[in-house]
Amino acid sequence: MMAVILTFLGKGGTGRTTMAIATAKGLAAQGKRVLLATSDSGPGPSLLLGTPLTTTPTPVETNLKAVQFQCAALLESSWEQLKTLEAQYLRTPFFKNVYGQELGVLPGMDSALALNALREYDHSGDYDAIVYDGNNSQETLRMLGMPEILSWYIRRFRQVFLDSDLGKALSPFVQPIASTVLSVDISGDTFAGPTKEMSNVLEQGKSAVSDPNRVSAYLVTTEDEVARATASYLWGSAQQVGLTVGGILLNQSQQTSYLADSFAPLTVTAIPEAASNWETLIKALPDFSQATSAPRSISIDVARRHVTLFLPGFDKKQIKLTQYGPELTIEAGDQRRNILLPPSLTGQPVTGAKFQNGYLIVSL
Amino acid sequence: MMAVILTFLGKGGTGRTTMAIATAKGLAAQGKRVLLATSDSGPGPSLLLGTPLTTTPTPVETNLKAVQFQCAALLESSWEQLKTLEAQYLRTPFFKNVYGQELGVLPGMDSALALNALREYDHSGDYDAIVYDGNNSQETLRMLGMPEILSWYIRRFRQVFLDSDLGKALSPFVQPIASTVLSVDISGDTFAGPTKEMSNVLEQGKSAVSDPNRVSAYLVTTEDEVARATASYLWGSAQQVGLTVGGILLNQSQQTSYLADSFAPLTVTAIPEAASNWETLIKALPDFSQATSAPRSISIDVARRHVTLFLPGFDKKQIKLTQYGPELTIEAGDQRRNILLPPSLTGQPVTGAKFQNGYLIVSL
Repeated sequence: MMAVILTFLGKGGTGRTTMAIATAKGLAAQGKRVLLATSDSGPGPSLLLGTPLTTTPTPVETNLKAVQFQCAALLESSWEQLKTLEAQYLRTPFFKNVYGQELGVLPGMDSALALNALREYDHSGDYDAIVYDGNNSQETLRMLGMPEILSWYIRRFRQVFLDSDLGKALSPFVQPIASTVLSVDISGDTFAGPTKEMSNVLEQGKSAVSDPNRVSAYLVTTEDEVARATASYLWGSAQQVGLTVGGILLNQSQQTSYLADSFAPLTVTAIPEAASNWETLIKALPDFSQATSAPRSISIDVARRHVTLFLPGFDKKQIKLTQYGPELTIEAGDQRRNILLPPSLTGQPVTGAKFQNGYLIVSL
Repeated sequence: MMAVILTFLGKGGTGRTTMAIATAKGLAAQGKRVLLATSDSGPGPSLLLGTPLTTTPTPVETNLKAVQFQCAALLESSWEQLKTLEAQYLRTPFFKNVYGQELGVLPGMDSALALNALREYDHSGDYDAIVYDGNNSQETLRMLGMPEILSWYIRRFRQVFLDSDLGKALSPFVQPIASTVLSVDISGDTFAGPTKEMSNVLEQGKSAVSDPNRVSAYLVTTEDEVARATASYLWGSAQQVGLTVGGILLNQSQQTSYLADSFAPLTVTAIPEAASNWETLIKALPDFSQATSAPRSISIDVARRHVTLFLPGFDKKQIKLTQYGPELTIEAGDQRRNILLPPSLTGQPVTGAKFQNGYLIVSL
């Protein structure tokens, strides 16, 4: 049994971490086994939760555990896993004299390791729900977009390598070196072995992110103009990575009606100003299963030859559509989404595109 | 003539972007040629500045230009640069059929590309000061820590490769393949060519980040407890990547005295609540050149055989010290810093370490 993963997007300071904690507490009170996971490595989450967090899931109250991701610690354990894996395949392991404890943290590692940790907690079967508190919403979206984009890179560059003079020139060398030095047998497609396992993980990640029964996001905003505009931008940006947004939380305010138009068809829920009065906050939270009825990010109608994307929060000028070989590329929200068309539409040129009420409809 | 680079660290929602804009406007009013660069790809910076930002520096007022980094656009232009470079060195360029416009954005690319863009604007000679508004402070620190950590990875893995059976087995193959396929002559050290140029860029980046005449950060906080604790954590974290923190801005408050103890020896400057009344904000800002007299992150006393690190905001339990071969590794603030000792101290074992008043003193 997999967990449901919930996350909160919004401008910094609107109360994302507070909403995440209230949600985790609320779901635990309903009897669900909940993990609250935060990527903020600073003191904030511990102070708000009122209990010190560590790098391993620690019981906070009945049904609720909490964990603080520290990239250095995650990197260390992933490195040990990598070395174990390497030792199984290679006669003379390459990385055996590099220690997990000395590895520095480079940009991007936080997200990659957090996503992998979420995947492992999800697969453990120990939780019904995981509430993920990201450090920054743009970073959270990059993280959740990773399975789709990484699988594109593998697909695309595998082809580039196979088609290249370099690939053709290297292939007679790779097999003898591999069998002599590495004592592994790589026959036929050099890339097939290691990428197959990787591809499965990525495919599972992609399908989880795009399934609101598995992963969904809620927008958090206050009445502040910048916070509202940011929420709107993040709505479109979330859809652009395939992530469904289930609703809006208007924090520290009761007047939801003026937001209804700009965030339709989503429901706006008012959250009263309650500092860390968890009871009050929990009572105000919406039913998070409503995400399953929110608009999906993409649908493909093979019969009508239409690809429809829901990209709210953008205007026409902010969306670019291009076609490369068998793929459509949508650029919006500082992200690129490459859409691999189903076989019956592959290779068909785009004959038209219109953008209306937040929907981009591409005709092939 | 290089620019001075200023950035602001703090919890989201404390007013970092507002401080960045006020600082940029204030420096421009002093007659400096200023670039305000933001990594927030959303609508926030444009709304706060009151003018739409684009991906190229656009004049905002006398002496002031502003630019919004969009990763997809930066990736596209970097890709074209890479292809140009590749075409110079390789007879059969590998990436010529991959288009910049189709590349998806993976975690970490934002930071790497933003740092490279800052470097280029810095080297252009067009600006006396660059004010960088990061999306998230932890991400900004990962970005500024990148030159040091990346040069460690290159140094460390080059040695691992040269020492390995794989390196020894591959070296007789690499030269003939390289000369046949790539039409380049790689003699002796396979790694020396491409990494030499890279190393220069990284060395320049490292020395800029650690020089408060070139790069410095200011902490932004409000009276809120979580914001203050976060600022303190980010202070230590900044020092841990070699970045000097020059002072504290206490936003929307006048009572600075209660902060003086926890942030000594830095100066706390009160910033009145002034929304976007830029005049009022600019008047309240401190003299940013004070960063040059703030404590540096590291000093090495060869005669006394001491390595001293200033790591405020941490307690003793949060700091780990280890030694691998010729390097010391300091772990704190979810970061690892690898310190290459000067020749006369290389290979000396650590004989003692004490942590006092924010200073870690390591004896060798």
